[in-house]
Amino acid sequence: MKKIVIHITAPDQKGIVSEYTKSLSEMNINIVSLEQHVEPDDLLFFMRIEAEISKSNNISSIKSRLEEVDSSINSKSWVYDLDYRQRMAVLVTKETLPLYDILIKNQIGDIKADIKFIGSNHEILKPISEQFNINFIHFDIESDKDEANINLNTMLSKDIDIVVLARYMQIIPEDIVEKFNGKMINIHHGFLPAFKGKNPYRQAWERGVKIIGATAHYVTNELDEGPIISQDVVRVNHHYSISEMIDSGRNLERNVLIEAIKAHLDYRIILHGSRTIIFNR
Amino acid sequence: MKKIVIHITAPDQKGIVSEYTKSLSEMNINIVSLEQHVEPDDLLFFMRIEAEISKSNNISSIKSRLEEVDSSINSKSWVYDLDYRQRMAVLVTKETLPLYDILIKNQIGDIKADIKFIGSNHEILKPISEQFNINFIHFDIESDKDEANINLNTMLSKDIDIVVLARYMQIIPEDIVEKFNGKMINIHHGFLPAFKGKNPYRQAWERGVKIIGATAHYVTNELDEGPIISQDVVRVNHHYSISEMIDSGRNLERNVLIEAIKAHLDYRIILHGSRTIIFNR
Amino acid sequence: MKKIVIHITAPDQKGIVSEYTKSLSEMNINIVSLEQHVEPDDLLFFMRIEAEISKSNNISSIKSRLEEVDSSINSKSWVYDLDYRQRMAVLVTKETLPLYDILIKNQIGDIKADIKFIGSNHEILKPISEQFNINFIHFDIESDKDEANINLNTMLSKDIDIVVLARYMQIIPEDIVEKFNGKMINIHHGFLPAFKGKNPYRQAWERGVKIIGATAHYVTNELDEGPIISQDVVRVNHHYSISEMIDSGRNLERNVLIEAIKAHLDYRIILHGSRTIIFNR
Amino acid sequence: MKKIVIHITAPDQKGIVSEYTKSLSEMNINIVSLEQHVEPDDLLFFMRIEAEISKSNNISSIKSRLEEVDSSINSKSWVYDLDYRQRMAVLVTKETLPLYDILIKNQIGDIKADIKFIGSNHEILKPISEQFNINFIHFDIESDKDEANINLNTMLSKDIDIVVLARYMQIIPEDIVEKFNGKMINIHHGFLPAFKGKNPYRQAWERGVKIIGATAHYVTNELDEGPIISQDVVRVNHHYSISEMIDSGRNLERNVLIEAIKAHLDYRIILHGSRTIIFNR
Repeated sequence: MKKIVIHITAPDQKGIVSEYTKSLSEMNINIVSLEQHVEPDDLLFFMRIEAEISKSNNISSIKSRLEEVDSSINSKSWVYDLDYRQRMAVLVTKETLPLYDILIKNQIGDIKADIKFIGSNHEILKPISEQFNINFIHFDIESDKDEANINLNTMLSKDIDIVVLARYMQIIPEDIVEKFNGKMINIHHGFLPAFKGKNPYRQAWERGVKIIGATAHYVTNELDEGPIISQDVVRVNHHYSISEMIDSGRNLERNVLIEAIKAHLDYRIILHGSRTIIFNR
Repeated sequence: MKKIVIHITAPDQKGIVSEYTKSLSEMNINIVSLEQHVEPDDLLFFMRIEAEISKSNNISSIKSRLEEVDSSINSKSWVYDLDYRQRMAVLVTKETLPLYDILIKNQIGDIKADIKFIGSNHEILKPISEQFNINFIHFDIESDKDEANINLNTMLSKDIDIVVLARYMQIIPEDIVEKFNGKMINIHHGFLPAFKGKNPYRQAWERGVKIIGATAHYVTNELDEGPIISQDVVRVNHHYSISEMIDSGRNLERNVLIEAIKAHLDYRIILHGSRTIIFNR
Repeated sequence: MKKIVIHITAPDQKGIVSEYTKSLSEMNINIVSLEQHVEPDDLLFFMRIEAEISKSNNISSIKSRLEEVDSSINSKSWVYDLDYRQRMAVLVTKETLPLYDILIKNQIGDIKADIKFIGSNHEILKPISEQFNINFIHFDIESDKDEANINLNTMLSKDIDIVVLARYMQIIPEDIVEKFNGKMINIHHGFLPAFKGKNPYRQAWERGVKIIGATAHYVTNELDEGPIISQDVVRVNHHYSISEMIDSGRNLERNVLIEAIKAHLDYRIILHGSRTIIFNR
Repeated sequence: MKKIVIHITAPDQKGIVSEYTKSLSEMNINIVSLEQHVEPDDLLFFMRIEAEISKSNNISSIKSRLEEVDSSINSKSWVYDLDYRQRMAVLVTKETLPLYDILIKNQIGDIKADIKFIGSNHEILKPISEQFNINFIHFDIESDKDEANINLNTMLSKDIDIVVLARYMQIIPEDIVEKFNGKMINIHHGFLPAFKGKNPYRQAWERGVKIIGATAHYVTNELDEGPIISQDVVRVNHHYSISEMIDSGRNLERNVLIEAIKAHLDYRIILHGSRTIIFNR
């Protein structure tokens, strides 16, 4: 039994759910879960349907059928194949924990993607890629930034579906960011939007905060301003030095990043301006 | 614009969403939110729809129309009027915080119910009922338990829709419990099912737990075994005495109880055996 | 048995604990709890001692004895009488929940203070002060801001020990803020420093945050920049409207504010620049 | 600069802190942190001191000096060398995440111990031990339980200081448990004491709990009844299948286990009957 996910966005109006579910019913498709949401500011309707299709269905004919509905009510639908393993690139610098966690969870099947390569501006994490037999590419930004970023662009252009910045400490060129709009996920080691930019833990420490956080978000060309996907927090107190805060944050970071990657791979996210709609699993 | 909630339970099958939403669409009813869930053990389908109806609709005709769908697919539907203010009874003993919170949140409109009376086996909380001008009834269980419980039954039989046990420290007679199956909510000051029965905080303290909790649940005739509606926890450590644990738990208790009451009043709960399905708000 | 709290700050050096505890031991004072902390940036040592004293001790002689130690090691000590009920003023505007919670917890003895008056720039919360028989003063800022603030200053000058801003929506004049440096606590309905200033929940909503927070802090003359005392958070999702976020935040706000007030009244806080050292209870 | 930790337990009485800190001061030892606690039921006093010693000090002379204090006030002290790397054995069965996390955090220096071997009743996790170049021993319980446990005992007898059960699904023989009293840490994938024994997630699912947890505890000969060291929880809802609960619990488990191991290695835990006193870091 094959599984698909359908996304629908439409101006809010009566009858949307009925129209689409009727079509699915007529195609003999079984809805496994259905969630909808209306954004109050612009009255846009969003829906995610997870469904099982039988051998008699094929995705392109489902698409065609739904496009008929789209045009009748001025909406837009997308159909995704849940069995397709997305091609992932992971960019890192020196931080070991988030990389390890992606590799481990990919290995145990918790993250269902094909990791095509691990790219880095350093070579320090190469041994980890070797532990897991994943291709490691050094983009030598220090020697020649332009050439390194051209190489990065070339590698990402090879049908990469999702780019994960697992504590990659370089600015991604604007054209690459645009190309992967809604497909490039970053982990920020702070509770955005509180502590943007560098040294968020020092900022947090100096303000004496009692709770620190981590935030996974889609990358946009404004630093640390992209749509938030997932966040988590942990309590700290005055006993925590900055480095102990960083240690506490490390567990958060990887958990929050993994949560965001999984939501993305399951097509549970719809982007809507600066906000994300994250459907239940 | 009037708002209604529709609950549907059905054996899982293709086309359920389509059938009901088509009917609503034909009645020109606007779906505000729709959520569904399938229980994996028995393949039962559950759906909650929140909708706006216009003056041309009336609830009994909606019911009739949906019953036609019910009989065609062997399902069952309920229609609730969200504007109807449920008649609530609150039973208490000595604990002030949960009672205060119900009264305050009722006063500011956060709990939309008509509190018909506060009942108690003590008189100690009578002044609070007076602060908020709510009828207070003393069920004198110490003097004559049977008579007190008969009085309680009589008072609850006056069209009471929901009974809230806000730290009521008496066993409710079995026949009353049965009459209010799925309509009587208790707050237990422990993280069920860990610490059933008496003195949950002493039990927790002696085990040296690092997290304590509170649980709101529907009352059944098995002590502290009813379906769980809401839970929350707070961290404690070895410095906490039992009474400090109790203090910390008090804030939890009231929050968890209020959350359960609100979910119930919004018809966001469907009971399913020992489990509750709690729809999003 | 009388209880006292001693605060000590000193340049970090060997033997501080020994010196002070020896003095207490010689005065036959029983240490109930002792906690210390060294700030890494400036190597300042902080200590809080909670102790039981007998009838033969009196606070002024304890002070004198400790001052001898102070001068020998270039430190500073303070002795507080835990039985003294601090005189509290509560300033509010329209928000009911934090005010109710202060009054309720004062009534049940959880907040041990004498609430001298509730002040407000509106009269809307007057009935709540009447429910609890607390003096209510209307500082009519709309009619005459200067006069109102002079009145406020006059009232606060009557030996008020602690001022609580329980969602008081007016700027406190700078001279009053300075007079109550480290003695005026505000609750901010956002997770500082993320959302300073007005409408923090709208800011949070527009950024699509997944967690919202509340922060209690000492008031300084920089808006929402004072030293943080306590914080808490709650998860939200895209279904939450701004007003539902505000509702969820209300429970946080009052809990966080109460926690800060209790820590202050127990002398568990030492201010150190922009940071607070919060000792365990 | 060498660091030591001192534990002291004593019948509660005046002057304990003074006596010990005076001795340390006389030996010219610098206290880095000091925490104390009195258990209310039996009025036992507990203290942990972290201190820096200079080259002129040596641990055995410190011990002797403190023993003089011990005998004068009927207390007991222990001195630990924080630079000593404890010898650790890790026992596993099939679960990859907790093992990976121990190895990764050992590799990055977050867990400061020498992992002498990974033992298992299966061979499935052997490749992970090879990734990290740690000795792997198969205790073949299925073929010959007695022999396997004798081998286990032999291996643990080789100066192993701490045994970590990272989801080891076998009962440890009673004599081994007794030998490692207070030195063998288990992770239970449930919020003890709620769900003892097998299949805690199924138990939790059937009760419809809204929060699940994990618990690290010292192993005793009563199943899942040992003193609790650390716990954490995560929210779930009716959408979670049992296997999704297990997935959510996996992140908890490893975090809770690592927290317990670190507290143990830093000598931040004092066992007291069924309770643990966990000092701050």
